[in-house]
Amino acid sequence: MSRGGRARGSVVLLSGGMDSATALAMALRKDPPVHALTFHYGQRHRREITWARALARHYHVTQHQVIEIPVGALLPSALTDPTSRLPRGRTGRASIPATYVPARNTILLAIALGYAEGRNFARIYIGANAVDYSGYPDCRPEFFRAFERLAALATKAGVEGSWRPRVMTPLLRMSKAQIVRRGERLGVPWDLTWSCYEGGRRPCGMCDACRLRAKGFAEAGVTDPTIDRRRPA
Amino acid sequence: MSRGGRARGSVVLLSGGMDSATALAMALRKDPPVHALTFHYGQRHRREITWARALARHYHVTQHQVIEIPVGALLPSALTDPTSRLPRGRTGRASIPATYVPARNTILLAIALGYAEGRNFARIYIGANAVDYSGYPDCRPEFFRAFERLAALATKAGVEGSWRPRVMTPLLRMSKAQIVRRGERLGVPWDLTWSCYEGGRRPCGMCDACRLRAKGFAEAGVTDPTIDRRRPA
Repeated sequence: MSRGGRARGSVVLLSGGMDSATALAMALRKDPPVHALTFHYGQRHRREITWARALARHYHVTQHQVIEIPVGALLPSALTDPTSRLPRGRTGRASIPATYVPARNTILLAIALGYAEGRNFARIYIGANAVDYSGYPDCRPEFFRAFERLAALATKAGVEGSWRPRVMTPLLRMSKAQIVRRGERLGVPWDLTWSCYEGGRRPCGMCDACRLRAKGFAEAGVTDPTIDRRRPA
Repeated sequence: MSRGGRARGSVVLLSGGMDSATALAMALRKDPPVHALTFHYGQRHRREITWARALARHYHVTQHQVIEIPVGALLPSALTDPTSRLPRGRTGRASIPATYVPARNTILLAIALGYAEGRNFARIYIGANAVDYSGYPDCRPEFFRAFERLAALATKAGVEGSWRPRVMTPLLRMSKAQIVRRGERLGVPWDLTWSCYEGGRRPCGMCDACRLRAKGFAEAGVTDPTIDRRRPA
Protein backbone atom coordinates (compact mmCIF):
# COMPACT_ATOMS: atom_id res chain seq x y z
CA MET A 1 0.00 0.00 0.00
CA SER A 2 3.01 2.30 -0.15
CA ARG A 3 2.99 5.12 -2.67
CA GLY A 4 5.52 3.37 -4.84
CA GLY A 5 8.65 4.97 -6.17
CA ARG A 6 11.73 5.78 -4.20
CA ALA A 7 11.16 6.29 -0.50
CA ARG A 8 11.86 9.78 0.78
CA GLY A 9 11.28 11.98 3.76
CA SER A 10 11.09 11.05 7.41
CA VAL A 11 8.79 10.25 10.27
CA VAL A 12 9.84 11.89 13.55
CA LEU A 13 8.79 10.72 17.01
CA LEU A 14 8.06 14.05 18.67
CA SER A 15 7.46 13.87 22.41
CA GLY A 16 7.78 17.59 22.96
CA GLY A 17 11.02 17.35 24.92
CA MET A 18 14.34 19.04 24.09
CA ASP A 19 15.79 15.90 22.49
CA SER A 20 12.92 15.19 20.12
CA ALA A 21 12.74 18.90 19.23
CA THR A 22 16.41 18.79 18.22
CA ALA A 23 15.90 15.54 16.28
CA LEU A 24 12.99 17.21 14.48
CA ALA A 25 15.16 20.18 13.51
CA MET A 26 17.79 17.78 12.17
CA ALA A 27 15.27 15.72 10.18
CA LEU A 28 13.78 18.86 8.63
CA ARG A 29 17.21 19.86 7.45
CA LYS A 30 18.41 16.46 6.24
CA ASP A 31 15.34 14.40 5.32
CA PRO A 32 12.32 16.49 4.41
CA PRO A 33 9.39 16.25 4.08
CA VAL A 34 8.69 15.39 7.70
CA HIS A 35 5.65 13.89 9.35
CA ALA A 36 5.72 14.05 13.15
CA LEU A 37 4.04 11.51 15.45
CA THR A 38 3.24 12.31 19.08
CA PHE A 39 1.91 9.60 21.37
CA HIS A 40 -0.16 9.81 24.47
CA TYR A 41 0.40 6.29 25.73
CA GLY A 42 -0.77 6.88 29.27
CA GLN A 43 2.09 8.91 30.66
CA ARG A 44 1.31 10.89 33.84
CA HIS A 45 0.39 14.11 32.11
CA ARG A 46 -0.40 15.58 28.71
CA ARG A 47 1.61 18.74 29.11
CA GLU A 48 4.38 17.72 26.73
CA ILE A 49 1.77 17.06 24.03
CA THR A 50 0.83 20.76 24.14
CA TRP A 51 4.46 21.59 23.45
CA ALA A 52 4.73 18.96 20.73
CA ARG A 53 1.84 20.70 18.96
CA ALA A 54 3.57 24.05 19.40
CA LEU A 55 6.81 22.67 17.94
CA ALA A 56 4.99 21.15 14.98
CA ARG A 57 3.33 24.52 14.30
CA HIS A 58 6.61 26.38 14.75
CA TYR A 59 8.32 24.16 12.20
CA HIS A 60 5.34 23.91 9.80
CA VAL A 61 5.78 20.14 9.55
CA THR A 62 3.83 18.63 6.67
CA GLN A 63 1.72 16.53 9.02
CA HIS A 64 1.53 16.11 12.79
CA GLN A 65 -0.44 13.20 14.20
CA VAL A 66 -1.25 12.99 17.91
CA ILE A 67 -2.03 9.37 18.63
CA GLU A 68 -3.85 8.06 21.69
CA ILE A 69 -2.85 4.53 22.65
CA PRO A 70 -4.23 3.93 26.13
CA VAL A 71 -1.76 1.26 27.18
CA GLY A 72 -0.36 2.96 30.29
CA ALA A 73 -2.26 0.71 32.70
CA LEU A 74 -0.79 -2.32 30.91
CA LEU A 75 2.80 -1.10 31.27
CA PRO A 76 3.73 -0.60 34.91
CA SER A 77 6.17 2.27 35.47
CA ALA A 78 6.63 5.37 37.59
CA LEU A 79 5.82 7.29 34.39
CA THR A 80 2.45 5.60 33.83
CA ASP A 81 1.28 5.25 37.43
CA PRO A 82 0.22 8.64 38.80
CA THR A 83 0.18 7.24 42.36
CA SER A 84 3.84 6.24 42.32
CA ARG A 85 6.62 8.59 43.40
CA LEU A 86 8.99 9.78 40.74
CA PRO A 87 12.67 9.23 41.48
CA ARG A 88 14.57 12.39 42.32
CA GLY A 89 18.23 13.15 42.35
CA ARG A 90 19.38 9.99 40.68
CA THR A 91 23.00 10.48 39.81
CA GLY A 92 24.57 7.11 39.07
CA ARG A 93 24.05 4.89 36.11
CA ALA A 94 24.05 1.65 38.02
CA SER A 95 20.49 0.49 37.44
CA ILE A 96 17.56 0.97 35.13
CA PRO A 97 15.38 3.75 36.59
CA ALA A 98 11.79 3.37 37.79
CA THR A 99 10.71 5.61 34.92
CA TYR A 100 11.48 2.80 32.48
CA VAL A 101 8.22 1.91 30.67
CA PRO A 102 8.19 -1.73 29.53
CA ALA A 103 8.80 -1.97 25.78
CA ARG A 104 7.81 1.67 25.17
CA ASN A 105 10.26 2.45 22.41
CA THR A 106 9.50 -0.87 20.72
CA ILE A 107 5.80 0.03 20.70
CA LEU A 108 6.29 3.59 19.44
CA LEU A 109 8.80 2.56 16.77
CA ALA A 110 6.50 -0.26 15.62
CA ILE A 111 3.66 2.18 14.97
CA ALA A 112 6.07 4.60 13.29
CA LEU A 113 7.30 1.70 11.16
CA GLY A 114 3.79 0.90 9.91
CA TYR A 115 3.17 4.60 9.27
CA ALA A 116 6.44 4.96 7.37
CA GLU A 117 5.80 1.88 5.26
CA GLY A 118 2.26 2.94 4.38
CA ARG A 119 3.48 6.35 3.17
CA ASN A 120 6.84 5.26 1.78
CA PHE A 121 9.00 7.27 4.15
CA ALA A 122 12.65 6.25 4.14
CA ARG A 123 13.58 7.11 7.70
CA ILE A 124 12.31 7.19 11.25
CA TYR A 125 13.93 9.73 13.59
CA ILE A 126 13.97 9.27 17.34
CA GLY A 127 15.72 11.60 19.78
CA ALA A 128 17.02 8.79 21.96
CA ASN A 129 20.12 9.42 23.95
CA ALA A 130 22.35 6.78 25.49
CA VAL A 131 24.96 8.92 27.19
CA ASP A 132 23.57 11.04 29.98
CA TYR A 133 20.69 8.69 30.58
CA SER A 134 22.02 5.30 29.74
CA GLY A 135 19.66 3.39 32.01
CA TYR A 136 16.98 2.62 29.42
CA PRO A 137 17.59 -0.61 27.51
CA ASP A 138 15.59 0.67 24.53
CA CYS A 139 17.84 3.71 24.12
CA ARG A 140 20.96 1.72 23.27
CA PRO A 141 22.56 1.39 19.83
CA GLU A 142 22.14 -2.41 19.81
CA PHE A 143 18.40 -2.02 20.36
CA PHE A 144 18.01 0.27 17.36
CA ARG A 145 20.09 -1.97 15.11
CA ALA A 146 17.98 -4.97 16.16
CA PHE A 147 14.83 -2.98 15.42
CA GLU A 148 16.10 -2.18 11.92
CA ARG A 149 16.76 -5.87 11.29
CA LEU A 150 13.27 -6.70 12.50
CA ALA A 151 11.76 -3.93 10.35
CA ALA A 152 13.24 -5.36 7.17
CA LEU A 153 11.67 -8.76 7.96
CA ALA A 154 8.36 -7.45 9.31
CA THR A 155 7.18 -5.35 6.39
CA LYS A 156 5.87 -6.00 2.91
CA ALA A 157 8.07 -3.35 1.37
CA GLY A 158 11.07 -4.59 3.34
CA VAL A 159 10.58 -8.19 2.22
CA GLU A 160 9.97 -7.18 -1.39
CA GLY A 161 13.28 -5.36 -1.26
CA SER A 162 11.83 -2.07 -2.40
CA TRP A 163 12.34 -0.35 0.95
CA ARG A 164 14.93 -0.47 3.69
CA PRO A 165 13.62 1.34 6.73
CA ARG A 166 16.27 3.14 8.74
CA VAL A 167 16.00 4.29 12.33
CA MET A 168 17.93 7.53 12.72
CA THR A 169 19.26 8.29 16.19
CA PRO A 170 21.38 11.41 15.65
CA LEU A 171 21.55 12.26 19.39
CA LEU A 172 22.40 8.77 20.58
CA ARG A 173 26.00 9.43 21.53
CA MET A 174 25.73 13.10 22.46
CA SER A 175 25.82 14.47 25.99
CA LYS A 176 22.99 16.77 27.00
CA ALA A 177 25.39 19.71 26.66
CA GLN A 178 26.23 18.65 23.10
CA ILE A 179 22.51 18.42 22.33
CA VAL A 180 22.00 21.96 23.65
CA ARG A 181 24.86 23.26 21.52
CA ARG A 182 23.57 21.48 18.41
CA GLY A 183 20.04 22.73 19.06
CA GLU A 184 21.36 26.28 19.51
CA ARG A 185 23.06 26.12 16.11
CA LEU A 186 19.82 24.86 14.56
CA GLY A 187 17.72 27.49 16.32
CA VAL A 188 15.59 25.05 18.31
CA PRO A 189 12.96 27.06 20.24
CA TRP A 190 13.71 25.71 23.72
CA ASP A 191 10.83 27.73 25.13
CA LEU A 192 8.49 25.41 23.22
CA THR A 193 9.91 22.23 24.79
CA TRP A 194 8.96 20.39 27.96
CA SER A 195 11.16 17.88 29.76
CA CYS A 196 9.71 17.61 33.29
CA TYR A 197 8.18 14.27 34.26
CA GLU A 198 5.71 16.01 36.56
CA GLY A 199 2.56 17.58 35.16
CA GLY A 200 2.75 20.91 36.99
CA ARG A 201 2.30 24.33 35.41
CA ARG A 202 6.06 24.86 35.48
CA PRO A 203 8.95 22.37 35.42
CA CYS A 204 9.55 20.98 38.92
CA GLY A 205 13.32 21.33 38.69
CA MET A 206 13.75 18.20 40.83
CA CYS A 207 12.95 15.15 38.71
CA ASP A 208 15.63 13.33 36.72
CA ALA A 209 14.51 14.93 33.47
CA CYS A 210 14.67 18.46 34.91
CA ARG A 211 18.09 17.83 36.46
CA LEU A 212 19.58 16.43 33.28
CA ARG A 213 18.18 19.32 31.29
CA ALA A 214 19.59 21.88 33.74
CA LYS A 215 22.98 20.17 33.71
CA GLY A 216 23.05 20.18 29.90
CA PHE A 217 22.19 23.86 29.61
CA ALA A 218 24.68 24.78 32.35
CA GLU A 219 27.52 22.83 30.74
CA ALA A 220 26.73 24.34 27.36
CA GLY A 221 26.68 27.83 28.87
CA VAL A 222 23.19 28.47 27.53
CA THR A 223 20.27 29.93 29.48
CA ASP A 224 17.18 27.71 29.49
CA PRO A 225 14.23 30.02 28.76
CA THR A 226 11.80 27.67 30.52
CA ILE A 227 13.79 28.09 33.73
CA ASP A 228 13.63 31.85 33.35
CA ARG A 229 9.87 31.49 33.15
CA ARG A 230 9.87 29.32 36.24
CA ARG A 231 11.69 31.87 38.33
CA PRO A 232 10.60 35.36 37.34
CA ALA A 233 12.97 38.07 38.54
CA MET B 1 8.65 -3.41 37.64
CA SER B 2 8.16 -7.14 37.13
CA ARG B 3 6.89 -9.21 40.02
CA GLY B 4 10.29 -10.80 40.53
CA GLY B 5 10.90 -14.49 40.84
CA ARG B 6 10.78 -16.98 38.06
CA ALA B 7 8.63 -15.96 35.10
CA ARG B 8 5.60 -18.14 34.48
CA GLY B 9 2.38 -18.22 32.56
CA SER B 10 1.60 -16.74 29.18
CA VAL B 11 0.08 -13.82 27.37
CA VAL B 12 -2.09 -14.84 24.40
CA LEU B 13 -2.98 -12.58 21.49
CA LEU B 14 -6.65 -13.46 21.06
CA SER B 15 -8.26 -12.04 17.92
CA GLY B 16 -11.35 -14.22 18.14
CA GLY B 17 -10.50 -16.27 15.05
CA MET B 18 -10.06 -20.03 14.84
CA ASP B 19 -6.26 -19.84 14.98
CA SER B 20 -6.00 -17.67 18.08
CA ALA B 21 -8.70 -19.77 19.77
CA THR B 22 -6.60 -22.87 19.16
CA ALA B 23 -3.45 -21.11 20.37
CA LEU B 24 -5.35 -20.09 23.51
CA ALA B 25 -6.39 -23.69 24.17
CA MET B 26 -2.76 -24.80 23.78
CA ALA B 27 -1.43 -22.07 26.09
CA LEU B 28 -3.98 -22.94 28.76
CA ARG B 29 -2.82 -26.53 28.67
CA LYS B 30 0.94 -25.89 28.50
CA ASP B 31 1.60 -22.48 30.09
CA PRO B 32 -1.02 -21.41 32.57
CA PRO B 33 -1.99 -18.99 33.97
CA VAL B 34 -3.07 -17.15 30.85
CA HIS B 35 -3.85 -13.50 30.27
CA ALA B 36 -5.48 -12.80 26.89
CA LEU B 37 -5.09 -9.54 24.96
CA THR B 38 -7.53 -8.53 22.23
CA PHE B 39 -6.84 -5.46 20.11
CA HIS B 40 -9.17 -3.22 18.23
CA TYR B 41 -6.60 -1.45 16.11
CA GLY B 42 -9.00 -0.05 13.57
CA GLN B 43 -9.93 -3.17 11.64
CA ARG B 44 -13.12 -2.90 9.56
CA HIS B 45 -15.43 -4.31 12.19
CA ARG B 46 -15.62 -5.25 15.85
CA ARG B 47 -17.42 -8.53 15.41
CA GLU B 48 -14.43 -10.71 16.18
CA ILE B 49 -13.97 -8.86 19.48
CA THR B 50 -17.39 -10.11 20.59
CA TRP B 51 -16.19 -13.64 19.94
CA ALA B 52 -12.86 -13.02 21.66
CA ARG B 53 -14.84 -12.05 24.78
CA ALA B 54 -16.95 -15.19 24.44
CA LEU B 55 -13.83 -17.35 24.13
CA ALA B 56 -12.22 -15.72 27.16
CA ARG B 57 -15.37 -16.39 29.18
CA HIS B 58 -15.63 -19.96 27.89
CA TYR B 59 -12.06 -20.69 28.97
CA HIS B 60 -12.21 -18.67 32.21
CA VAL B 61 -8.90 -17.01 31.43
CA THR B 62 -7.37 -15.25 34.43
CA GLN B 63 -7.56 -11.86 32.72
CA HIS B 64 -8.82 -10.64 29.36
CA GLN B 65 -7.92 -7.14 28.22
CA VAL B 66 -9.60 -5.55 25.22
CA ILE B 67 -7.30 -2.77 24.08
CA GLU B 68 -8.27 0.09 21.78
CA ILE B 69 -5.39 1.45 19.75
CA PRO B 70 -6.91 3.67 17.06
CA VAL B 71 -4.09 3.38 14.55
CA GLY B 72 -6.09 2.01 11.61
CA ALA B 73 -6.06 5.32 9.73
CA LEU B 74 -2.27 5.41 10.06
CA LEU B 75 -1.81 1.93 8.57
CA PRO B 76 -3.25 1.73 5.07
CA SER B 77 -4.73 -1.69 4.24
CA ALA B 78 -7.87 -3.29 2.87
CA LEU B 79 -8.48 -4.42 6.47
CA THR B 80 -8.38 -0.91 7.94
CA ASP B 81 -10.06 1.03 5.13
CA PRO B 82 -13.81 0.32 5.09
CA THR B 83 -14.12 1.93 1.65
CA SER B 84 -11.70 -0.46 -0.03
CA ARG B 85 -12.79 -3.75 -1.56
CA LEU B 86 -11.64 -6.90 0.12
CA PRO B 87 -9.87 -9.40 -2.14
CA ARG B 88 -11.93 -12.48 -2.96
CA GLY B 89 -10.94 -15.83 -4.27
CA ARG B 90 -7.22 -15.40 -3.91
CA THR B 91 -5.66 -18.79 -4.47
CA GLY B 92 -1.98 -18.34 -5.21
CA ARG B 93 0.81 -17.37 -2.89
CA ALA B 94 2.64 -15.14 -5.29
CA SER B 95 2.22 -11.78 -3.63
CA ILE B 96 1.46 -10.21 -0.29
CA PRO B 97 -2.31 -9.66 -0.11
CA ALA B 98 -4.07 -6.31 0.17
CA THR B 99 -5.20 -7.32 3.66
CA TYR B 100 -1.63 -6.93 4.89
CA VAL B 101 -1.61 -4.23 7.61
CA PRO B 102 1.76 -2.44 7.82
CA ALA B 103 3.72 -3.64 10.86
CA ARG B 104 0.61 -4.98 12.59
CA ASN B 105 2.16 -8.00 14.25
CA THR B 106 5.18 -5.95 15.32
CA ILE B 107 2.83 -3.46 17.01
CA LEU B 108 0.68 -6.10 18.73
CA LEU B 109 3.68 -8.14 19.86
CA ALA B 110 5.41 -5.01 21.18
CA ILE B 111 2.44 -4.21 23.44
CA ALA B 112 2.23 -7.86 24.51
CA LEU B 113 5.95 -7.72 25.27
CA GLY B 114 5.55 -4.74 27.59
CA TYR B 115 2.56 -6.42 29.24
CA ALA B 116 4.48 -9.66 29.69
CA GLU B 117 7.51 -7.92 31.15
CA GLY B 118 5.45 -5.87 33.58
CA ARG B 119 3.74 -8.99 34.93
CA ASN B 120 6.65 -11.40 34.58
CA PHE B 121 5.04 -13.71 32.05
CA ALA B 122 7.44 -16.10 30.38
CA ARG B 123 5.75 -16.53 27.04
CA ILE B 124 3.70 -14.75 24.41
CA TYR B 125 1.43 -16.93 22.26
CA ILE B 126 0.32 -15.88 18.80
CA GLY B 127 -1.76 -18.03 16.46
CA ALA B 128 0.20 -17.04 13.37
CA ASN B 129 0.27 -19.43 10.49
CA ALA B 130 2.77 -19.42 7.65
CA VAL B 131 1.50 -22.33 5.57
CA ASP B 132 -1.93 -21.75 4.11
CA TYR B 133 -1.53 -17.99 4.20
CA SER B 134 2.11 -17.38 3.63
CA GLY B 135 1.74 -13.93 2.18
CA TYR B 136 2.18 -11.94 5.37
CA PRO B 137 5.82 -11.07 6.10
CA ASP B 138 5.09 -10.84 9.83
CA CYS B 139 3.77 -14.41 9.99
CA ARG B 140 7.10 -16.00 9.06
CA PRO B 141 9.44 -17.89 11.39
CA GLU B 142 12.32 -15.46 10.73
CA PHE B 143 10.15 -12.54 11.82
CA PHE B 144 9.33 -14.16 15.15
CA ARG B 145 12.95 -15.11 15.83
CA ALA B 146 14.02 -11.51 15.06
CA PHE B 147 11.33 -10.26 17.41
CA GLU B 148 12.65 -12.50 20.21
CA ARG B 149 16.15 -11.13 19.67
CA LEU B 150 14.80 -7.59 19.82
CA ALA B 151 12.77 -8.39 22.94
CA ALA B 152 15.85 -9.51 24.87
CA LEU B 153 17.57 -6.20 24.04
CA ALA B 154 14.52 -3.95 24.45
CA THR B 155 13.47 -4.82 27.97
CA LYS B 156 14.82 -4.17 31.44
CA ALA B 157 14.27 -7.74 32.54
CA GLY B 158 15.78 -9.04 29.31
CA VAL B 159 18.91 -6.91 29.70
CA GLU B 160 19.29 -7.77 33.37
CA GLY B 161 19.22 -11.42 32.34
CA SER B 162 16.38 -12.31 34.66
CA TRP B 163 13.90 -12.91 31.88
CA ARG B 164 14.05 -14.33 28.40
CA PRO B 165 10.80 -13.60 26.60
CA ARG B 166 9.70 -16.27 24.17
CA VAL B 167 7.21 -15.89 21.33
CA MET B 168 5.29 -19.13 20.95
CA THR B 169 3.89 -19.85 17.49
CA PRO B 170 2.52 -23.39 17.81
CA LEU B 171 0.43 -23.16 14.62
CA LEU B 172 3.13 -21.66 12.45
CA ARG B 173 3.81 -24.71 10.32
CA MET B 174 0.37 -26.30 10.41
CA SER B 175 -2.10 -26.34 7.54
CA LYS B 176 -5.60 -25.09 8.29
CA ALA B 177 -6.77 -28.73 8.29
CA GLN B 178 -4.15 -29.60 10.89
CA ILE B 179 -5.28 -26.66 13.00
CA VAL B 180 -8.87 -27.90 12.82
CA ARG B 181 -7.81 -31.40 13.87
CA ARG B 182 -5.70 -30.07 16.74
CA GLY B 183 -8.51 -27.80 17.85
CA GLU B 184 -10.97 -30.70 17.73
CA ARG B 185 -8.76 -32.73 20.05
CA LEU B 186 -8.53 -29.77 22.43
CA GLY B 187 -12.27 -29.16 22.29
CA VAL B 188 -12.04 -25.66 20.83
CA PRO B 189 -15.59 -24.21 20.62
CA TRP B 190 -15.58 -23.29 16.92
CA ASP B 191 -19.03 -21.76 17.26
CA LEU B 192 -17.41 -19.03 19.39
CA THR B 193 -14.87 -18.07 16.71
CA TRP B 194 -15.08 -15.57 13.87
CA SER B 195 -12.81 -15.57 10.81
CA CYS B 196 -14.64 -13.47 8.20
CA TYR B 197 -12.99 -10.18 7.20
CA GLU B 198 -16.40 -8.63 6.53
CA GLY B 199 -18.50 -7.29 9.38
CA GLY B 200 -21.84 -8.86 8.44
CA ARG B 201 -24.13 -10.73 10.78
CA ARG B 202 -22.93 -14.01 9.31
CA PRO B 203 -19.64 -14.99 7.66
CA CYS B 204 -19.67 -13.93 4.00
CA GLY B 205 -18.20 -17.20 2.76
CA MET B 206 -16.36 -15.35 0.01
CA CYS B 207 -13.39 -13.50 1.52
CA ASP B 208 -9.96 -15.10 1.82
CA ALA B 209 -10.44 -15.81 5.53
CA CYS B 210 -13.79 -17.56 4.95
CA ARG B 211 -12.39 -19.62 2.08
CA LEU B 212 -9.33 -20.75 4.00
CA ARG B 213 -11.49 -21.66 6.96
CA ALA B 214 -13.89 -23.66 4.80
CA LYS B 215 -11.02 -25.47 3.09
CA GLY B 216 -9.49 -26.36 6.45
CA PHE B 217 -12.71 -27.77 7.86
CA ALA B 218 -13.44 -29.67 4.65
CA GLU B 219 -10.01 -31.24 4.50
CA ALA B 220 -10.20 -32.19 8.17
CA GLY B 221 -13.64 -33.74 7.64
CA VAL B 222 -15.16 -31.58 10.36
CA THR B 223 -18.38 -29.61 10.11
CA ASP B 224 -17.95 -25.89 10.84
CA PRO B 225 -20.81 -24.94 13.18
CA THR B 226 -20.69 -21.31 12.06
CA ILE B 227 -21.44 -22.43 8.51
CA ASP B 228 -24.39 -24.45 9.77
CA ARG B 229 -25.65 -21.27 11.37
CA ARG B 230 -25.16 -19.36 8.15
CA ARG B 231 -27.24 -21.74 6.09
CA PRO B 232 -30.11 -23.05 8.17
CA ALA B 233 -31.71 -26.20 6.75
